[in-house]
Amino acid sequence: MDKEYIIRPLSPSDFSKGFLDLLSKLTTVGSVSEPEFTRRFGEIFDIEKKNSSPPPYFIAVIEDKGRIIASGTLLIENKFIHGCGCVGHIEDVVVDETMRGHHLGQRIIQFLTGYARDAHCYKVILDCSEHNVGFYEKCGFSRKAVQMAQYFD
Amino acid sequence: MDKEYIIRPLSPSDFSKGFLDLLSKLTTVGSVSEPEFTRRFGEIFDIEKKNSSPPPYFIAVIEDKGRIIASGTLLIENKFIHGCGCVGHIEDVVVDETMRGHHLGQRIIQFLTGYARDAHCYKVILDCSEHNVGFYEKCGFSRKAVQMAQYFD
Repeated sequence: MDKEYIIRPLSPSDFSKGFLDLLSKLTTVGSVSEPEFTRRFGEIFDIEKKNSSPPPYFIAVIEDKGRIIASGTLLIENKFIHGCGCVGHIEDVVVDETMRGHHLGQRIIQFLTGYARDAHCYKVILDCSEHNVGFYEKCGFSRKAVQMAQYFD
Repeated sequence: MDKEYIIRPLSPSDFSKGFLDLLSKLTTVGSVSEPEFTRRFGEIFDIEKKNSSPPPYFIAVIEDKGRIIASGTLLIENKFIHGCGCVGHIEDVVVDETMRGHHLGQRIIQFLTGYARDAHCYKVILDCSEHNVGFYEKCGFSRKAVQMAQYFD
């Protein structure tokens, strides 16, 4: 049976546990110093403290042997539509490649989806490559629309 | 030549100028009273006041003859990736159907994209139907990924 991996919120001490190394498996991270990490952590979670219901961000991580091995972010958007409803945006889901096969990605998605439901979101959305559509369908998602992007120099 | 339409931020008095009627052309709005509108406005823009750079939401509207005829929202997400970069999410773009042909949608998109660039976002993203891909390509966007969604009861 699989080891029980605990999902917990990101903590400032995760800088030294390879959180950014893990994100660099997903995309460009660049050079982010510990003070820069701490400042951004404050910018994200000060928002959480200063606002009541629901907090706008939840960054879920799984730690194993002192290293962060999986992560995913939920951003909660307050809307006027759907009776002043909320939408959960799942972002930056990544699992350490040496830990594939333990269903950690699925656990992160289930956790964030449950968190969004508990926060009274009427839906949760995410963007993925065509290659990952099957994985997200297994997690209860359906193909909905086209993601468009514009990059700045 | 087209009349010059001014883009401005959403204001609490836009409740009585048909802002929710306009959104109901896009999707379900439901019954939202003026106190509910005002409370949600506060939840969204208190975030803006309490945080420094960049503010997380900008809701752009165009008013004509005392009515809101076009709107679009930019939500700015703080990330750790891309050197603690920011991403702009464009949401809930809608133009009154009687005002089609005045390029108001394009103006809203250009405004929000420029706002995201000025706020140092490294990209701006949005989800749209297959039918609207051509419109967003004309606005400088490219097809990027698949949007997946999970709805709660």
